[in-house]
Amino acid sequence: MEKIVEQTLLYDFYGELLTEHQKRVYEDVVFNDLSFSEAAEERGISRQGVHDLIKRCNRILQEYEEKLGLVEKFLMTQEKVKEIHSLAQEYRKTEDRKLIFKIEEISEEISHL
Amino acid sequence: MEKIVEQTLLYDFYGELLTEHQKRVYEDVVFNDLSFSEAAEERGISRQGVHDLIKRCNRILQEYEEKLGLVEKFLMTQEKVKEIHSLAQEYRKTEDRKLIFKIEEISEEISHL
Repeated sequence: MEKIVEQTLLYDFYGELLTEHQKRVYEDVVFNDLSFSEAAEERGISRQGVHDLIKRCNRILQEYEEKLGLVEKFLMTQEKVKEIHSLAQEYRKTEDRKLIFKIEEISEEISHL
Repeated sequence: MEKIVEQTLLYDFYGELLTEHQKRVYEDVVFNDLSFSEAAEERGISRQGVHDLIKRCNRILQEYEEKLGLVEKFLMTQEKVKEIHSLAQEYRKTEDRKLIFKIEEISEEISHL
C-alpha cells in the first residue's frame, strides 16, 4: 500500500486517540503538505520537534493497528463488498445464476470476518 | 442492545488496549461468569478491587468507542451485508431484477460508510 494511503487509513481509524496538538501538527504535515519548517513556525515549536512528533504519531497509530487490526479488517470487508458489486453488475449482463450463489457466499464470509 | 452483547463487541474491538491483568479479570467476570468474590480469590485481589476494575474497564472500552465509533460502523456494515444476503436469497425465488439493482446500491452504500 502507498505510504500516504496507509497513513490516511490509520489516521482515519485511530487519529482521535492522538492529542489535539498532535492531530494539528500531523494534519499540517501529512495531509496539508506543509514542510517541517512551515509546520514548526505555524505551531511555535522547533523543526526537530515537528520531526519527532510525526515519527511518534506514526508509531502510535501503527501500534494501535498492530493491537486491533481494524484497518486490515475494514480493507478485507471493502474488498469483498467490491466483489459483490461486480458480481451484481455481471449478473445483469449474463443472468448466470451461479453469480447469485456467489453473492450469498461472499456476504456470508463478510459476516464472519 | 443487550448489555452483554455490547460488552462483548466493545471487548472484541478494543480489548487489546487493556492491560494483561485487566483482560484476565474482565474475562473471568464478564465472559466466564465468575462472581466478583471468585474472581477476587482467583487473582489475589479484593472483591472491591474486582468491582472497580470491571467498572473502569467498561468505562475505558466505552471511551474508545466514543472516540472511534468503530463498533457502530461495524454493526451498520453487518446490517447492510445481511440485507444483501436476504436480497440474493429472495432473488433466487422471485427473479425480480429490481433486487439486483438493490444489491448494487447497498454494496455502494457500504463503501461509503
